[in-house]
Amino acid sequence: MDRIRANFNKQVFMRTLGAELVSWEKGFARIACDIAEQHLQQHGYAHAGILASIADSACGYAALSTMPDDAEVMSVEFKITLMRPCTANRIIADGRVLKTGRTLVFTEGAVNDANGSETYATMTATMFCLRPVE
Amino acid sequence: MDRIRANFNKQVFMRTLGAELVSWEKGFARIACDIAEQHLQQHGYAHAGILASIADSACGYAALSTMPDDAEVMSVEFKITLMRPCTANRIIADGRVLKTGRTLVFTEGAVNDANGSETYATMTATMFCLRPVE
Amino acid sequence: MDRIRANFNKQVFMRTLGAELVSWEKGFARIACDIAEQHLQQHGYAHAGILASIADSACGYAALSTMPDDAEVMSVEFKITLMRPCTANRIIADGRVLKTGRTLVFTEGAVNDANGSETYATMTATMFCLRPVE
Amino acid sequence: MDRIRANFNKQVFMRTLGAELVSWEKGFARIACDIAEQHLQQHGYAHAGILASIADSACGYAALSTMPDDAEVMSVEFKITLMRPCTANRIIADGRVLKTGRTLVFTEGAVNDANGSETYATMTATMFCLRPVE
Repeated sequence: MDRIRANFNKQVFMRTLGAELVSWEKGFARIACDIAEQHLQQHGYAHAGILASIADSACGYAALSTMPDDAEVMSVEFKITLMRPCTANRIIADGRVLKTGRTLVFTEGAVNDANGSETYATMTATMFCLRPVE
Repeated sequence: MDRIRANFNKQVFMRTLGAELVSWEKGFARIACDIAEQHLQQHGYAHAGILASIADSACGYAALSTMPDDAEVMSVEFKITLMRPCTANRIIADGRVLKTGRTLVFTEGAVNDANGSETYATMTATMFCLRPVE
Repeated sequence: MDRIRANFNKQVFMRTLGAELVSWEKGFARIACDIAEQHLQQHGYAHAGILASIADSACGYAALSTMPDDAEVMSVEFKITLMRPCTANRIIADGRVLKTGRTLVFTEGAVNDANGSETYATMTATMFCLRPVE
Repeated sequence: MDRIRANFNKQVFMRTLGAELVSWEKGFARIACDIAEQHLQQHGYAHAGILASIADSACGYAALSTMPDDAEVMSVEFKITLMRPCTANRIIADGRVLKTGRTLVFTEGAVNDANGSETYATMTATMFCLRPVE
């Protein structure tokens, strides 16, 4: 099993949410989540927090995929814009690296429905890279 | 039971996370969550997503508390800054209204440990107010 | 002269900065600025404020281009990420509409060098639409 | 003359805008600007870009004031929320450090009128610290 997937499997919170790592390549990661009653807010839409959680993770794994094997990444900050209420049965969060530096990795993300026809949220996130002492 | 608490109880996602509405007054809301294994990311810290979820909800209820009884609020966007890894056993998210307008409510939030001595994250969030047709 | 250009010409601050409206179409606007000594910060790079100013305006005009003739837009909030120091002689800010609603318009922007090979900053901005009373 | 003031005086863009460093202490900086026609947008309000520019600088100098003498700071990202149209004759931007780390400094800022009774904008900004090689 690859290191990105192994790392994802250690994120207990992703399991709590029922999220799965769909795919990744260098500079990109995709996480999906079937929306169930447990994810809803008071109007019956998926809660902003579930969208933020999987988009942040997708951005983090996109960043990690550009790092050496023994590096780690932490979220410094992110902004999420919730463009429309999320009524999808399944949401897909894509994270993409815009620029990788020595210490900081700049990423962007989007949360779409399963066939990519509707975008519910966009994100920009800054990741901090923890490299092993050299 | 008051309308803010009734509304909170309809947020199934808050229950999924184990979050509780501690208190609220006009322009302010406090939500707490005991951190357990289910909330952790791969380094053993609370996931950014759990901090974001409860801070967003605290900001939303702070906003709702300034609205008429039959209004609703939705998150338009928020930014969260994760100032340090969250190792607390219990986190407290405070949401506060900075300005209430007819359509938009501007709020800020913070996620602290249980005795308020350590701040893990700060948030600014814009809420959209859905008022009944007049 | 078209309404977007007429509106731009009333933004005295754009003239103060030496910025020019290069082009626009529905949902898009491009603003350019030749960088001179007056725009620099203490390390000799273009100041974050000049990048933010023209990117915000580009997003605003992109939003306005999707509105009725007699509507106006105001910035609600924006986030800008400064990916690398800006050493360009000329910068181009592109603003693009992601979603137009009745009240809010969601946009994104980027600040590039003149041939689009280097991106200095990315922005996401929320615009508020002021429509005439109907 | 102190190092913060000497550094500010090298920011040509602040002179272009007519901004002045009012005061600073460790973890705090205040910048003021008299609003004139040159700062206006099309509705006669101060442009979001002028508020962003001086708030970003105030946050940057607040950060710098917590650093060693030979360090420099650069803005990584900031978000500004424009809570109301800015009609003031003079605006005051305060920057404040929330947490200083080895590499990143987290700050917040606000833009008020001259007597502090009206807040036009709030900001959160992340600064990157460039330290001399040790």
